Amino acid sequence: MNRYNIEDTIYALATAWAKSAIAVVRISGKGCIGTLSKAIGGKVDIRNKPSNSAIYCRLISPVDGHHVDDIVLTLYRDGHGYTGEDAAEISCHGGLQVVQAVLATMAELGFRQALPGEFSLRAFLHGKMDLTRAEAVNELINAQGMTGRAMALKRLNGDLFRRISDIKATVVRIMGTVEVQLDYSEDEIGEDLTFPMEELEKAIEALGTIRDSYNTGRLYSQGAKVVLAGPSNAGKSSLFNLFLKEDRSIVSAQKGTTRDYIEAMCTVGGIPIRLYDTAGFRSFSESEIEEEGIRRSHSLVEGADIIIYMVDSSDMGAMDGSVLSDPRCIAVLNKSDLKDVDMDGFVKLSVVTGAGFSELCSRITEKLTSDLGVSDESALVIENDRQKENLSRAVSSLQAARLAVESGLPLDIVSMDIQEALEALGELTGEVTTDDILDRIFGSFCVGK
Amino acid sequence: MNRYNIEDTIYALATAWAKSAIAVVRISGKGCIGTLSKAIGGKVDIRNKPSNSAIYCRLISPVDGHHVDDIVLTLYRDGHGYTGEDAAEISCHGGLQVVQAVLATMAELGFRQALPGEFSLRAFLHGKMDLTRAEAVNELINAQGMTGRAMALKRLNGDLFRRISDIKATVVRIMGTVEVQLDYSEDEIGEDLTFPMEELEKAIEALGTIRDSYNTGRLYSQGAKVVLAGPSNAGKSSLFNLFLKEDRSIVSAQKGTTRDYIEAMCTVGGIPIRLYDTAGFRSFSESEIEEEGIRRSHSLVEGADIIIYMVDSSDMGAMDGSVLSDPRCIAVLNKSDLKDVDMDGFVKLSVVTGAGFSELCSRITEKLTSDLGVSDESALVIENDRQKENLSRAVSSLQAARLAVESGLPLDIVSMDIQEALEALGELTGEVTTDDILDRIFGSFCVGK
Repeated sequence: MNRYNIEDTIYALATAWAKSAIAVVRISGKGCIGTLSKAIGGKVDIRNKPSNSAIYCRLISPVDGHHVDDIVLTLYRDGHGYTGEDAAEISCHGGLQVVQAVLATMAELGFRQALPGEFSLRAFLHGKMDLTRAEAVNELINAQGMTGRAMALKRLNGDLFRRISDIKATVVRIMGTVEVQLDYSEDEIGEDLTFPMEELEKAIEALGTIRDSYNTGRLYSQGAKVVLAGPSNAGKSSLFNLFLKEDRSIVSAQKGTTRDYIEAMCTVGGIPIRLYDTAGFRSFSESEIEEEGIRRSHSLVEGADIIIYMVDSSDMGAMDGSVLSDPRCIAVLNKSDLKDVDMDGFVKLSVVTGAGFSELCSRITEKLTSDLGVSDESALVIENDRQKENLSRAVSSLQAARLAVESGLPLDIVSMDIQEALEALGELTGEVTTDDILDRIFGSFCVGK
Repeated sequence: MNRYNIEDTIYALATAWAKSAIAVVRISGKGCIGTLSKAIGGKVDIRNKPSNSAIYCRLISPVDGHHVDDIVLTLYRDGHGYTGEDAAEISCHGGLQVVQAVLATMAELGFRQALPGEFSLRAFLHGKMDLTRAEAVNELINAQGMTGRAMALKRLNGDLFRRISDIKATVVRIMGTVEVQLDYSEDEIGEDLTFPMEELEKAIEALGTIRDSYNTGRLYSQGAKVVLAGPSNAGKSSLFNLFLKEDRSIVSAQKGTTRDYIEAMCTVGGIPIRLYDTAGFRSFSESEIEEEGIRRSHSLVEGADIIIYMVDSSDMGAMDGSVLSDPRCIAVLNKSDLKDVDMDGFVKLSVVTGAGFSELCSRITEKLTSDLGVSDESALVIENDRQKENLSRAVSSLQAARLAVESGLPLDIVSMDIQEALEALGELTGEVTTDDILDRIFGSFCVGK
């Protein structure tokens, strides 16, 4: 944690490094408003302005007084801002030269450039948010679909924190029962030992449910890999383009670095999808390159969550049985507008008219979510590896405690297991932390957050 | 101007469309705070909050009440914000999904997406800034170097507006003198006609100086084209990289679309430079392609503001005399660390040690600014075509008035010329405008400004 000296005043560009109408530079640190006042020109004295006020003023260099920009400065005093300490936000003109000049002025004031996630770290350290909420900030910013966004927002809201706190209270009660009995000698308790097994079972189940929601969370945050396969001329590239056209939240479409496939991001039913079209393989002409193309195609198919295997209704000769029998496969008959064929298990599609496309999308969503059990936005879902690990540890420890009770092991053992579970839950919300944990969490944030 | 209905409440993303810590959505329009209050959840009532206050609150959908994001909302009432009308800024989490959701919420409230420059247009229409200041906002955002930024900031400050207003006051006084005399019949004036020729001369000169500053302004805003030329192995690519390394404000380095040269943006002495390295030509092997390469090289050199012609100190055999005698040429002897040769007019350089690089930079800056007359940051400089055209019109009209007086033409003619000059100056600052002019000016702004 020595990287993060919380005595420093830190600053960072909180908006993207690209030309825009306005840009925002964030500042946080004890006494920073007094220091900032040295860089405010004219008659404005920001030192006596109240918290949460937005002040139109002139930013000047504290070194030579030159005019840096006209800005709107928003002040946050003690506890009112994001970080829970004195803070300010400079809204300046969004030109790159302007941003550079503003950042240079912050350095002139002796402020230090913030490390990634350092504002959120301070918010955590000042008790403005627990770790699950801090992580939700980052997850919200990185959300790739509306469902993932809604799930992250719930965690930011504290839903996960409150749920964990409730379960933890239960575990603490169980621990209390055990400790009371430990305080007496074995002789004194005798037959009166009443372990609250039902409560323990409930806690294990509740924690297990949250842990298992990780698969759903991962799907909505990281997306699924969908590969388009099938013979040439079946219309794979047209289907690829149709996915992109239908989805308004396309991020990008790009050729694979080795030019052997095309990849694009889109969302289907709120699930982010990485879509791969292997059409590029056709461009290989010589046989050895062809082989290399097929090898790569296979490795792409191997890692897929869904394989859309598409054939032409009028040309159903050469179908690949091994792909069709793959449980990840959705079979599609294209060009149904030209020849209407019914075939069991196949989705009838016309890429040209769009008929059948929404059924294909439903089949994709269904296949992706059928094993997950959770498709409801109102459910509490996690997507974070660290949280999953902590939950797994808590569940295992409580299961060990249960086994110890059932096996009639000494209560010391039971107590140790429960203690371990409480520690895992404490780490999850950040009541128990180490520098190492904090470093790992906040280091993955973007700068300025 | 029917595109710009100023009765609408408008909104736009004012920060860049890219993932970042925070994003800002700007809203402006009469009564917009009352409408916005329908999308604020919880107990917060923004309708009774004062202007310039930043309120942490929950943005919800006014349609179904779902939670959109936790935001900081800054309110600007009547006349206190950028646009001079009721306005607000939403600072939300900077994820693309979050931004999309916030923008969708604005649409749900019945707000209209702003056209480019529409916020600045409203600021102008509400008398918050004249046209030269409004244009300076855009020029500041687009500035590519520190000097260009400083020049735009002065215009934003109103320096140009005040200077033009002073000169205009002089012209109005001259007009007054003429009109007084026009009110009398020719007989009555006789020999008493005293035309304030000296004042007119001063006005012409002052306007001419500002108009001529355009060349400087253009150089600092658009940059100069610097081409590296010379035989192979002279070290052109290394010099190219040295320019990029020395300059901290590099924007990008990219291959030309036809891969026959490499281009990069950097600044030298505060002047934005588009630097071209023709090293790529060497990659052509077949003779006809070689010719095409040479043809393109020549066309690149033709359009250059500066040609840096570099040879190896140890290999001075094949120099191109036609380039060396070009007035745009700066001749450089590279590898001076290996062989120290003095040659009249050549800059001695070692790309390896960096020796001589700062002299080369001085020579570039000198050559670029020597014809401009202005290199001082304190000078008032314009960079805008429209402003230059208006100034040229004003100067020509006043020169015509002078000629009319000198030729003893009737005062009606003189009056018409002066009137034309006043109109040009009125257009310059926006006292006289047409929808067409406004459309042209603000249409070139970025959205959200």
